[in-house]
Amino acid sequence: MVAAAPRLIGMAHTTLDAVHEKTPVTLLGLGAMGGALARAWLAAGHPLTVWNRTAARTGPLAAEGAVVAATAAEAVTANQLVVVCLLDDASVEEALADVELAGKDLVNLVTGTPGQARAWAERRGARYLDGGIMAVPPMIGVPAAGPYVFYSGSAELLADHRAALIAPADARFVGTDPGRAALYDVALLSAMYGMLAGVAHAFALVREEPVAPGELAPLLGGWLTAMTGSIDRTAAQLAVGDYTVGVVSTLAMQVAGQTTLLRTAEEQGVSTELLAPYFRLMERRLELGGGEEDLTGVIGLLLPRAG
Amino acid sequence: MVAAAPRLIGMAHTTLDAVHEKTPVTLLGLGAMGGALARAWLAAGHPLTVWNRTAARTGPLAAEGAVVAATAAEAVTANQLVVVCLLDDASVEEALADVELAGKDLVNLVTGTPGQARAWAERRGARYLDGGIMAVPPMIGVPAAGPYVFYSGSAELLADHRAALIAPADARFVGTDPGRAALYDVALLSAMYGMLAGVAHAFALVREEPVAPGELAPLLGGWLTAMTGSIDRTAAQLAVGDYTVGVVSTLAMQVAGQTTLLRTAEEQGVSTELLAPYFRLMERRLELGGGEEDLTGVIGLLLPRAG
Repeated sequence: MVAAAPRLIGMAHTTLDAVHEKTPVTLLGLGAMGGALARAWLAAGHPLTVWNRTAARTGPLAAEGAVVAATAAEAVTANQLVVVCLLDDASVEEALADVELAGKDLVNLVTGTPGQARAWAERRGARYLDGGIMAVPPMIGVPAAGPYVFYSGSAELLADHRAALIAPADARFVGTDPGRAALYDVALLSAMYGMLAGVAHAFALVREEPVAPGELAPLLGGWLTAMTGSIDRTAAQLAVGDYTVGVVSTLAMQVAGQTTLLRTAEEQGVSTELLAPYFRLMERRLELGGGEEDLTGVIGLLLPRAG
Repeated sequence: MVAAAPRLIGMAHTTLDAVHEKTPVTLLGLGAMGGALARAWLAAGHPLTVWNRTAARTGPLAAEGAVVAATAAEAVTANQLVVVCLLDDASVEEALADVELAGKDLVNLVTGTPGQARAWAERRGARYLDGGIMAVPPMIGVPAAGPYVFYSGSAELLADHRAALIAPADARFVGTDPGRAALYDVALLSAMYGMLAGVAHAFALVREEPVAPGELAPLLGGWLTAMTGSIDRTAAQLAVGDYTVGVVSTLAMQVAGQTTLLRTAEEQGVSTELLAPYFRLMERRLELGGGEEDLTGVIGLLLPRAG
């Protein structure tokens, strides 16, 4: 209870800041995601300066209170905090090519590779924060939808601008390595495409049957959600380097079961191209002696360099 | 309230049945899943006769109260309700080759193809029920774990033996087409392997980084669970035949984003073999003019026959 008083004073101070001095934000890029971010900042009362390569998207935001800059340089000059949400790394290079960034706090929300993020951090020095947005535009500014951004790089920059940065989506700082946010972003998106590939195969299997897609959908969603429980077991096995810990269905059993899945695809006239690569890796691990393991041994086979 | 009295009488009758006349069950096959089913029936008070090709697994069950039959034929003779839980369809053919099944109620829980299930139903006539168990052995007999079995074929057989059949896991009847349960079973398993392939790729991306697998695991699980929300949208688009309904990120945008995912894999030394086939189908659909669609158009590309 001794700590309560100073903490309350700190909170009161933050609240005053929030009411009286909302950090002004410069935003470069008004695609679907940029537009959603812009509206979240305006809704939270942050003065906002925007720039977009094609000017057509700026009109509605000007009507909602944003200042529209004619050039990226003008937008960057306007505020200390500069957030970039363009299409890709090349668009960022192009937009910022002749722009003076000295003394600015740059937050790069463009989905790029870890290497691209590290290269930006090297050029920018200490005041660089890289972010990976884990949300689609309709989730931005809607806390109940659970949107969040992985941030990595300058923890100080995040601390200084936290109130502004969490207005559109929650912040999860994942490390001072500036590439970490991009790595996590790409890891989650990659896993998602795997899941969507599996879902596409499942829908294809019933496509020619008198089955309403809406009948299969909740069953698929429930099953996949339940099966995410295996991810913690995989992590635990990787951590200890023993892929037999807590195994429920052995690799040998699961390889035996592939036949039914492949034959069913054949019966239903569905290509096996989306399932086959993973099944081949399962077989390779079995040949390498992993029959009593879980499926975790497949992961190392994806890393030929590491051997 | 008028209906309350007869309903209560019905319930009392069921309860008496449950106490005094638990349906005796014959179970063929005592692998991990068969063993779990056997214990669930014994725990629920059903007289149980078991048979297994190798006798070693029957000892513990005999000690727990099961009657051990010397042959499959002897086990089948013992009871009206015969449940089969062997390795695969070939094992069922072998076990039942010379067994008289006339008048028996056969429930086949072996994971097989829809075609195999339909062939059994044809040979068996009306009293055939095919099942696909959506659970791993530790979930059997644990209602809180949510285990269930897809059933298809004879609705009458399921109704007659419902109390016995739901003792190990809940029953979901999905149609009189005896192949339907196997189709749903395989559809869900196939989708799961897609998800596991994506998860393997994600763990491979961070494998050479100073990242604890346990740090990534809950992020992956949470993200994939959230993204299962897209499955309902896919089903709705399939149902109306319009793949642009409610689209959040267009196929064109997502194809553009592939570059970052593939380059990140390259930077991290991870093979792209698990992502590439789905990405190729996305590109093919884009070339066919689906740029403004969701990803749903990929499904049709898996069905070359339906073309």
